[in-house]
Amino acid sequence: MDYQVDLNCDLGESFGAYTMGNDEDILDLITSANVACGFHAGDPSVMKKTVRMALEKGVGIGAHPGTPDLSGFGRRAMAISAEEAYDLTMYQIGALDAFVRAEGGVMQHVKPHGALYNMAAKDSSLAEAIAEAVYAVNPELILFGLSGSELVRAGEKIGLRTASEVFSDRTYQPDGSLTNRREPNALITDPEIAGAQVVRMVKEGKVRTVDETDFALRADTVCIHGDGVTALEFARRLKGLLPDEGVRVEKIGSRFS
Amino acid sequence: MDYQVDLNCDLGESFGAYTMGNDEDILDLITSANVACGFHAGDPSVMKKTVRMALEKGVGIGAHPGTPDLSGFGRRAMAISAEEAYDLTMYQIGALDAFVRAEGGVMQHVKPHGALYNMAAKDSSLAEAIAEAVYAVNPELILFGLSGSELVRAGEKIGLRTASEVFSDRTYQPDGSLTNRREPNALITDPEIAGAQVVRMVKEGKVRTVDETDFALRADTVCIHGDGVTALEFARRLKGLLPDEGVRVEKIGSRFS
Amino acid sequence: MDYQVDLNCDLGESFGAYTMGNDEDILDLITSANVACGFHAGDPSVMKKTVRMALEKGVGIGAHPGTPDLSGFGRRAMAISAEEAYDLTMYQIGALDAFVRAEGGVMQHVKPHGALYNMAAKDSSLAEAIAEAVYAVNPELILFGLSGSELVRAGEKIGLRTASEVFSDRTYQPDGSLTNRREPNALITDPEIAGAQVVRMVKEGKVRTVDETDFALRADTVCIHGDGVTALEFARRLKGLLPDEGVRVEKIGSRFS
Amino acid sequence: MDYQVDLNCDLGESFGAYTMGNDEDILDLITSANVACGFHAGDPSVMKKTVRMALEKGVGIGAHPGTPDLSGFGRRAMAISAEEAYDLTMYQIGALDAFVRAEGGVMQHVKPHGALYNMAAKDSSLAEAIAEAVYAVNPELILFGLSGSELVRAGEKIGLRTASEVFSDRTYQPDGSLTNRREPNALITDPEIAGAQVVRMVKEGKVRTVDETDFALRADTVCIHGDGVTALEFARRLKGLLPDEGVRVEKIGSRFS
Repeated sequence: MDYQVDLNCDLGESFGAYTMGNDEDILDLITSANVACGFHAGDPSVMKKTVRMALEKGVGIGAHPGTPDLSGFGRRAMAISAEEAYDLTMYQIGALDAFVRAEGGVMQHVKPHGALYNMAAKDSSLAEAIAEAVYAVNPELILFGLSGSELVRAGEKIGLRTASEVFSDRTYQPDGSLTNRREPNALITDPEIAGAQVVRMVKEGKVRTVDETDFALRADTVCIHGDGVTALEFARRLKGLLPDEGVRVEKIGSRFS
Repeated sequence: MDYQVDLNCDLGESFGAYTMGNDEDILDLITSANVACGFHAGDPSVMKKTVRMALEKGVGIGAHPGTPDLSGFGRRAMAISAEEAYDLTMYQIGALDAFVRAEGGVMQHVKPHGALYNMAAKDSSLAEAIAEAVYAVNPELILFGLSGSELVRAGEKIGLRTASEVFSDRTYQPDGSLTNRREPNALITDPEIAGAQVVRMVKEGKVRTVDETDFALRADTVCIHGDGVTALEFARRLKGLLPDEGVRVEKIGSRFS
Repeated sequence: MDYQVDLNCDLGESFGAYTMGNDEDILDLITSANVACGFHAGDPSVMKKTVRMALEKGVGIGAHPGTPDLSGFGRRAMAISAEEAYDLTMYQIGALDAFVRAEGGVMQHVKPHGALYNMAAKDSSLAEAIAEAVYAVNPELILFGLSGSELVRAGEKIGLRTASEVFSDRTYQPDGSLTNRREPNALITDPEIAGAQVVRMVKEGKVRTVDETDFALRADTVCIHGDGVTALEFARRLKGLLPDEGVRVEKIGSRFS
Repeated sequence: MDYQVDLNCDLGESFGAYTMGNDEDILDLITSANVACGFHAGDPSVMKKTVRMALEKGVGIGAHPGTPDLSGFGRRAMAISAEEAYDLTMYQIGALDAFVRAEGGVMQHVKPHGALYNMAAKDSSLAEAIAEAVYAVNPELILFGLSGSELVRAGEKIGLRTASEVFSDRTYQPDGSLTNRREPNALITDPEIAGAQVVRMVKEGKVRTVDETDFALRADTVCIHGDGVTALEFARRLKGLLPDEGVRVEKIGSRFS
């Protein structure tokens, strides 16, 4: 096979007595796990358990730093400064790294969560602060960002390896941004269309946008959603389809090693 | 000189818009800093700043993990399980370690804070969980605990280097525990008596208890309080007195290297 | 009918993106709802929604104040002072009361949660502080406490109306306390035995303890668990059984009005 | 005298072991206190103490609800929804109201804090949600907002009494907004100029803007800063100056009663 792609999913989002997601099931379908680090979700006990499960299944482990917004699940845009972004990214990477190292593993990547991810896609100063924090802790880490975003650009500029992320179940705007979730045509619910979109992004480096033009983008890793039975079924189909189309599914870290 | 001792102080306890302590002044008087890690006090920005200051002044840096009790400053006993103690200790060490590594330093030690310190002094299962977390992250770390406590015992048992902590401004009970702060004779306010107590603990390995008996203890490091003008003056006198008495003041890490 | 009893359940325990419990289903089975107030669980949006649902279904609304321990769900004993207990109880009652008043309702009762409930059952100073806070906000509120506990005693002493709470699915010790959950015989899993225990507590004021003696207690309200299919089924049977046994199920507030 | 004005200040911003502000001193200079409610600052114990002090000194008490952003002191803009604004405003008003009622007082007003205040000045949907929450809890409460803001407009629209707030130590833009703090001419440091600005706003309903034009505005209450010796001195001068200029300083609630 000549093509390859990573499948990543947010994991370890349970908190205290609250359970979220189907972490065990989803681990069988993905190659990289973005583990919540206690700011927007997750807690030390959940982190340890999630790291252990991911290591057992050979899934690449990444830190998934978020804003300090537990009640909003890190989804609300927040006017944090670039320095605050640097500091909270570093803090959360370190916290997760302790569990990874204690369990004998090596952290593979960092993917900002929710509002932090979205803000860093467009705001170059936030993007650079996050990239600098990642680099300062460990220059071997792979930085995940939206394909074509400021975050990917900031990572490359500083010398980090990056992974450009694409979505199977979201439609794209002519400028390569995702259609806002509030729009009626934001989501792709037909698994065949979703699968075809991923295959084309990986193999041709192009996506068909909502106005029927093509947009060029890089597709290193696909975001998989872990909540709900449909999402799991969606992921299962995608994972089955890709090898048939000549796309090897493997964790991003393997490509660089 | 044949004797040596470390002087440690809690640092980095500011939080967001709230300032606490005289970190810059106290750094000139101590050899080891216990840096709050965001649970009972501190935040990512304060941690970065504190680590930088400590490195500039050559002071040994330690993680100061506490209970998840910001509103109680980590001082309220809390029925956490041994596993929770392991997990939150590991999380907090990791978070601080990221800043230390990013700044080119090496973490020297770990000292639990407040209620966690007090509970681990008496509860062997909590003590062992904390010691295991420290060891699992990095077996080179030095574990600070109350002299004669379960925590020091747990650290030694697992193969960690430990530092037995003593107090200059607190009186001791016949069993080697500190007199409860609620008792009228709990505090030593005369700096000469306090200084003499430290000198004797370091050189003779003994402390005179409240009922005028001697108790044998090890004194590797002395707890310095950083809040208030009196505390600073107290620390200044102690730091001046020790060399005159033939006790070298140096960071604990130097002794082991 | 000559007998009556209230059925209460903890509600509104969801938080942000996290869902807990089957609030809508359970509201059809109970007469009083203990609504989490944001410290151990719940948030302002969940509180509003829960208050609205309870008012629609005519269920009595109570504040369910807990310790500031979101990550531990308020279940971990915590050494808070009596004054802190007073303050946090008052704060949480007030917060919930705003929603109740805004929706045109009247708060019926207050039941401390988890560790706060357990500590106040045995510690008279905590119990009195909580009772005083309830009284100071509104002397018409009914205070819920474990039957025979210090909390019920403190409420009566200060002139509050109280509701003595009993459990259908827990066994009792000879001194009237609940068997520790860690003991193998702590739980009653046979719904017939559980139902019979409630009927006898309500009608005879007695419970058969684990050593086969009788213990006298008052049974104003029964704690219903809302999590899990079994719990719902358990509650459904109990609610059906009671009228057959001549026990009217009605909200505690109706008895006093 | 024909003119009158209220002087308000943020109070009760201490938290746990952290102290902020000179609450006792400032209470002698102001007529209305905005008391933090535990989201951006404050805690139940601080709230109780602050309410007691304000009642003793006859100062009007207001709730000062903020965003759930303790680490950012509620100063960071946050993309909360209108419904979330409604819910968190109601929660915080209720929490403070319990202390006010328990101490035998009556809450006078509500003033959103920091980012919530700034966002509600411009965003009419947030402003309306906040005004609705205030009205729903108690239609007698007075809503404080920036003079000319959406918040004042939303309050008036729903039938609340409002207080238009002006600043003595900030310069104004031609459109009546405050000059951004990052601009060099944002602050007025000369107490005479500051005093004259307040006198003119109160008596003439006009302020001289940075481009030397006049802007018409209403001035019901002046924001006083409570941090630092300079701020206290500033407030003292202002309080002395106003009666000499024929402006009576009295709490806003007196005007409506």
